[in-house]
Amino acid sequence: MSQIKKVVLAYSGGLDTSVILKWLQDEYKCEVVTFTADIGQGEELEPARAKAKAAGVKSIYIDDLREEFVRDFVFPMFRANTVYEGEYLLGTSIARPLIAKRLVEIARAEKADAISHGATGKGNDQVRFELGAYALMPNVKIIAPWREWDLTSREKLLAYADTHGIPVDFKKRKGESPFSMDANLLHISYEGGILEDPAAAPPEKGMWRLTVSPEKAPSKPELVELQFERGDLVAINGQRMKAHELLAELNRLGGKHGVGRLDLVENRYVGMKSRGCYETPGGTILLRAHRAIESLTLDREVAHLKDELMPRYASLVYNGYWWSPERTALQVLIDHTQERVNGTVTLKLFKGNVIITGRSSADSLFDAKIVTFEEDEGAYDQADAGGFIKLNALRMRIAASKAQAERPRRAAAKKAAPAKPAAKPAARKPTA
Amino acid sequence: MSQIKKVVLAYSGGLDTSVILKWLQDEYKCEVVTFTADIGQGEELEPARAKAKAAGVKSIYIDDLREEFVRDFVFPMFRANTVYEGEYLLGTSIARPLIAKRLVEIARAEKADAISHGATGKGNDQVRFELGAYALMPNVKIIAPWREWDLTSREKLLAYADTHGIPVDFKKRKGESPFSMDANLLHISYEGGILEDPAAAPPEKGMWRLTVSPEKAPSKPELVELQFERGDLVAINGQRMKAHELLAELNRLGGKHGVGRLDLVENRYVGMKSRGCYETPGGTILLRAHRAIESLTLDREVAHLKDELMPRYASLVYNGYWWSPERTALQVLIDHTQERVNGTVTLKLFKGNVIITGRSSADSLFDAKIVTFEEDEGAYDQADAGGFIKLNALRMRIAASKAQAERPRRAAAKKAAPAKPAAKPAARKPTA
Amino acid sequence: MSQIKKVVLAYSGGLDTSVILKWLQDEYKCEVVTFTADIGQGEELEPARAKAKAAGVKSIYIDDLREEFVRDFVFPMFRANTVYEGEYLLGTSIARPLIAKRLVEIARAEKADAISHGATGKGNDQVRFELGAYALMPNVKIIAPWREWDLTSREKLLAYADTHGIPVDFKKRKGESPFSMDANLLHISYEGGILEDPAAAPPEKGMWRLTVSPEKAPSKPELVELQFERGDLVAINGQRMKAHELLAELNRLGGKHGVGRLDLVENRYVGMKSRGCYETPGGTILLRAHRAIESLTLDREVAHLKDELMPRYASLVYNGYWWSPERTALQVLIDHTQERVNGTVTLKLFKGNVIITGRSSADSLFDAKIVTFEEDEGAYDQADAGGFIKLNALRMRIAASKAQAERPRRAAAKKAAPAKPAAKPAARKPTA
Amino acid sequence: MSQIKKVVLAYSGGLDTSVILKWLQDEYKCEVVTFTADIGQGEELEPARAKAKAAGVKSIYIDDLREEFVRDFVFPMFRANTVYEGEYLLGTSIARPLIAKRLVEIARAEKADAISHGATGKGNDQVRFELGAYALMPNVKIIAPWREWDLTSREKLLAYADTHGIPVDFKKRKGESPFSMDANLLHISYEGGILEDPAAAPPEKGMWRLTVSPEKAPSKPELVELQFERGDLVAINGQRMKAHELLAELNRLGGKHGVGRLDLVENRYVGMKSRGCYETPGGTILLRAHRAIESLTLDREVAHLKDELMPRYASLVYNGYWWSPERTALQVLIDHTQERVNGTVTLKLFKGNVIITGRSSADSLFDAKIVTFEEDEGAYDQADAGGFIKLNALRMRIAASKAQAERPRRAAAKKAAPAKPAAKPAARKPTA
Repeated sequence: MSQIKKVVLAYSGGLDTSVILKWLQDEYKCEVVTFTADIGQGEELEPARAKAKAAGVKSIYIDDLREEFVRDFVFPMFRANTVYEGEYLLGTSIARPLIAKRLVEIARAEKADAISHGATGKGNDQVRFELGAYALMPNVKIIAPWREWDLTSREKLLAYADTHGIPVDFKKRKGESPFSMDANLLHISYEGGILEDPAAAPPEKGMWRLTVSPEKAPSKPELVELQFERGDLVAINGQRMKAHELLAELNRLGGKHGVGRLDLVENRYVGMKSRGCYETPGGTILLRAHRAIESLTLDREVAHLKDELMPRYASLVYNGYWWSPERTALQVLIDHTQERVNGTVTLKLFKGNVIITGRSSADSLFDAKIVTFEEDEGAYDQADAGGFIKLNALRMRIAASKAQAERPRRAAAKKAAPAKPAAKPAARKPTA
Repeated sequence: MSQIKKVVLAYSGGLDTSVILKWLQDEYKCEVVTFTADIGQGEELEPARAKAKAAGVKSIYIDDLREEFVRDFVFPMFRANTVYEGEYLLGTSIARPLIAKRLVEIARAEKADAISHGATGKGNDQVRFELGAYALMPNVKIIAPWREWDLTSREKLLAYADTHGIPVDFKKRKGESPFSMDANLLHISYEGGILEDPAAAPPEKGMWRLTVSPEKAPSKPELVELQFERGDLVAINGQRMKAHELLAELNRLGGKHGVGRLDLVENRYVGMKSRGCYETPGGTILLRAHRAIESLTLDREVAHLKDELMPRYASLVYNGYWWSPERTALQVLIDHTQERVNGTVTLKLFKGNVIITGRSSADSLFDAKIVTFEEDEGAYDQADAGGFIKLNALRMRIAASKAQAERPRRAAAKKAAPAKPAAKPAARKPTA
Repeated sequence: MSQIKKVVLAYSGGLDTSVILKWLQDEYKCEVVTFTADIGQGEELEPARAKAKAAGVKSIYIDDLREEFVRDFVFPMFRANTVYEGEYLLGTSIARPLIAKRLVEIARAEKADAISHGATGKGNDQVRFELGAYALMPNVKIIAPWREWDLTSREKLLAYADTHGIPVDFKKRKGESPFSMDANLLHISYEGGILEDPAAAPPEKGMWRLTVSPEKAPSKPELVELQFERGDLVAINGQRMKAHELLAELNRLGGKHGVGRLDLVENRYVGMKSRGCYETPGGTILLRAHRAIESLTLDREVAHLKDELMPRYASLVYNGYWWSPERTALQVLIDHTQERVNGTVTLKLFKGNVIITGRSSADSLFDAKIVTFEEDEGAYDQADAGGFIKLNALRMRIAASKAQAERPRRAAAKKAAPAKPAAKPAARKPTA
Repeated sequence: MSQIKKVVLAYSGGLDTSVILKWLQDEYKCEVVTFTADIGQGEELEPARAKAKAAGVKSIYIDDLREEFVRDFVFPMFRANTVYEGEYLLGTSIARPLIAKRLVEIARAEKADAISHGATGKGNDQVRFELGAYALMPNVKIIAPWREWDLTSREKLLAYADTHGIPVDFKKRKGESPFSMDANLLHISYEGGILEDPAAAPPEKGMWRLTVSPEKAPSKPELVELQFERGDLVAINGQRMKAHELLAELNRLGGKHGVGRLDLVENRYVGMKSRGCYETPGGTILLRAHRAIESLTLDREVAHLKDELMPRYASLVYNGYWWSPERTALQVLIDHTQERVNGTVTLKLFKGNVIITGRSSADSLFDAKIVTFEEDEGAYDQADAGGFIKLNALRMRIAASKAQAERPRRAAAKKAAPAKPAAKPAARKPTA
């Protein structure tokens, strides 16, 4: 432990990372640099600075990363219509590689030899932080106190805080905030506590913060128009804004109308199932709208290729491989497909619903002249379909004909010889 | 045309197939056998019998296929969480292979040499009918009047009907039902008319039939409990029913609460984009609930494998390859994965929302003891995660180290030689 | 037929396209422009010019496309390690999109309204020509005489030639060249004749032209060194050459040593199986060498991603979708992965064998320090593997534990209730 | 260490596992049960028994697993045409899950609480052993001495052996066997020593044991006929044999003719590249022959589906996930596809070459009547191809037409507004 001279800590100012800050100073006898990012979590950052100062930290980094977060991480991910396991919009996952990148940049600038974070040894976030850091700075040392120390319960943590004069929030002490939360511009997640029983519904009160419930949302629908360029949202209701402002505005709209609550069981990369509740109001709208504009502007086979690659891309993001060469390779393909994904989507928000009401684009591949049920004046020759079907059927027809011709021979063979039992699937778990 | 002696016609009793019936008799001088199926489209079938009789049909088949439809087609498809292009639940697609199968069975029983249907030459349904028929009866002749005749407009069709004494519904004549519709137990689809403009919202009135709008749905949520066995729904609120009764009940529940409306642009197999509106109240609930029970009972990698294969499976169903060997091969895999997909899902229906509130199963793979944020008494050793991450990072660390070491050499090489331009992507469309 | 004014014909100067030339002039009463390409088929082109002139053609295009062929089509395809159905190196397929492109360019330059080719209606080449042409010139008319005319046998073709004074090669008349062949810089293919029986071995004599048999190849091995940059071959034995010269030299080397003969049954896009024999001496060497240099320089996950996408890419090329947006999207990914695929491969050619003997690269990701069986001085901490394995095993351990715990309950349940028969796979072909 | 009472050791009788046996007895103070398997490695097993006895082992298991190995592991894998990273036939990988299964069975029978093996912490084999064991016996303790002890060099190992009276082979002491080898009925692998330089060719002498070199192979080819049923080899030259006898005979044939040597760089699951040389004479023949019989009997789309899934299946086997639910799910699909993979393949072995010369099957889907270049008497209507191509081209034609129509508008827009720079790929590694 004595080899570390300077460590950069991802520091929120909360209880856990405050304890870690102290613990690093005491156990590693090293200088700690703190890094606190604004990624839209909606909390004041200045208290973190004050606390760090009070703890004797000399180099304190507090960065507004909101625009970079949305522009370079959230939007590229949405170009792929990314959803993990059919439901989860990856709100936590997508923020981690940015934090990892910034930790490494600061470590370089500060000539630090290690980085540290407050993620536990059971979760995905440790993996996301560390895979990112290793990929960007291969020789970095990483200190993950939750995997090292013996403060394995809340009581021990509070006792440590008390012993070392670390201020503890009143609610924390009372255990009144029973969830483990993570917040940023894309979402808030809730885990732990009562949610550890997947059969139990989440509590109506004390949890959801970005959205009202559908029940309490306005009973009047609201129409919204979203404009896309190269697959990215660029304007809401005609108003161009920066990426992070757009997402904030979508959050406001979605949150008001009860859009984007999720309650699910997911499979963590470390091998266990976990239950989480998520609010992703803006992201939920964005996903539907992006699919809608793609439906008009993307070639069928390109769209299907994207759909088939998406689960793998989603797993890469979920598992922390943002900075991997395979994620980059997929991104190059995805970004290429978005060149003509331009246009406008109108939608209606109402009590949890995102209802697409129209899409239009100068790059539309929709050809009303060809698709019409009315006279098409020769735009499409229906007779072509006969040949199309017959050649697509040919292999199946040949197989069926051969099978018919084979049948008598097989029947005879069967009669002649006693039936050989069907080959059993070769490999089965032993009845362990 | 003279070679055909007997043809089995998929006959609804409506205007189009009534014209086809007459046209087949006249043009092909052949006997026509009619086949009308109840797949839950919600229409009386006896009028079809009367009309067929009146048209001189001797062999009239009217079959209740509702249970077979849901049990052997809809449910297997939902085991795969099948969604086409991210949105469409394949309500029309999944009914066609059953019709094709029954047409072929009747053709065999009647020793008919051809089958016929009323699908147009622009759509997917002709492909689905015909691929199915060819796969099951390789030498069958298929007559698709819309690809042959010259009744290429509504006016010509009505004129033909009038000339031949085919009764025309008053509304049809007035053009008051401006949509092309398809209905069965899984959904109703609407295409054509005003919907041919993808920028235009569907009309509030005169279209949706299975669902109320979310706005008009009850303002009181309703809780529902769904029970699954081997991936299939077996009971609602504790009540076991037949497959088709279950789906009908889900439709009732979803329809009442405004669940399952869709408005989308899709890519047809014949190469064009088309716009459709769909109501799939029961299917929408079923998909969410099936995913929820899988989230608890399915291994992570099996679930991901299914997710990666799903788009391909969906395309096979959409494109009409139900009776193909590749669909069967995928089904064998999918069905195998469902052996432990048992348990109960509770959900809340409210104004278009399907809100999962809990899931439980004797086959649950959720391990609260391991995932807990509290003391786990050694169920999970957090230290393991360090090695897990380090080996997963190793290839990226090696690459980054090598790249760092290479950098000075490359820089020197660059200085020595003038930069070679980057290899251009090889294949580009010429500036046509 | 009277609407066509000018047609560009892909013209080889052989019997078939000479008949087509005449037939087009007679049947369509239109001007015919001929286009003959040198893609390394190893035939004189001037006779084609003379024949075209003699047939009254005014615009005659004879182009040397060898460099473009190898640089922009063959090499990009080899970047993907492309093999169709595990065996076929796509020698014919990859030449067609280039011909299609040039046909369209000439049609534009000549203001022609149609193009024509000599491919039959049973094969893949018609599809490759026409998909390419349609993608590049959407309103082009395409005349495929083999699908239109009644010259459906060799006798009829010869009779037509005689009637119209088209010179017929003596051998052709005698039927002494019993194969349908296609040749270019990448390969020669042989189909038809005796090869139509997949149980019959190809004849030892009269067929193979680019390669000696392994039996007759030199009994002394030859060492070759291949240098790659960005995934493309750039030098052989230290000698930099143009792309088409490199492939010609590889053909010479491979041909001399009996490398690259293939005899296979493949699945055509039009739905039938066909048997073909192929000689691809240079391509066979190139594929092995490219894999070898990638094995050293490509990240594992990127390599695996390429391997999983390859069959789809190969099908696109085989089926004629070179000019499709999905092929381009995959190419963008593939090309991106090749940025560091630089280095040298040494191999030994001997009687049909291509034996890799070494690979080296400044971009190597091979780390001898880490992989060594000897002391590694801490480069790799073996203890990490324990955690790696334990977390990768976790989901299986949980499942096995749960299954163990469940067993008594299940056994009891089974005892209580008579066994329900296993759910049968839902969809089966009816015993047609 | 004191908790372990009884451990089952995978014991070869060689130096390494003999040291481990002693070390386990000394360090863990536990009873050691030895297990030695005959999987065709070609070594006497009785010496292992004698050595175990001498070391005081009471329970000694020596099992002939050759038939189970080939029937239940090798053959199922070959049904998938499994190749890892385009080259490696997985000879080592496929044996490990069988060893793991037997270790667990013995542990259960002996009521042992742990298992142990001699694989190092750098390789894949530790993963394969342990993932298998954990999947089959979730609470098993695993002792991997190479990850625990301090015998980190050959010298220390020899010293330990000498100290504890473990006999050391003379060659071993001299370091005359410079490779790490693994042998079974499917292959022999060589790693380490001079092979750790991927640029160096493997030595001509002292390494290859199953095969002669192509140079030294007979100059007379040998014809072989292989018969398949349900995708598995069942007879050679008309002679039915047990699975392991068949593979042994293929090894003899291939070995005699110099077939099946490989020299490659592969990506290990633990994250590093390694260089290996492999001899797989029988497997090389089997793979080619299996592909040949599939080419005749397998539907195109099923074959392509298998090809696309194969790399993933290969990775699962390579990485040690044989006993995982995802491998089983894939196997179920693969086995299903093999139902009609019956028939006979003839091939020629000659100096390293496996040359397919014919294939035939009662289940052949090859239809000579349809594919023929001669008159087909209406078996195939060439005119169908026109419609097939036109509908497959439709989406590309629409896109090209739209792009043409858009061009003037875009040009005008460009003129009006200064060009916006192209969106950069979102995520790039910082210039670390």
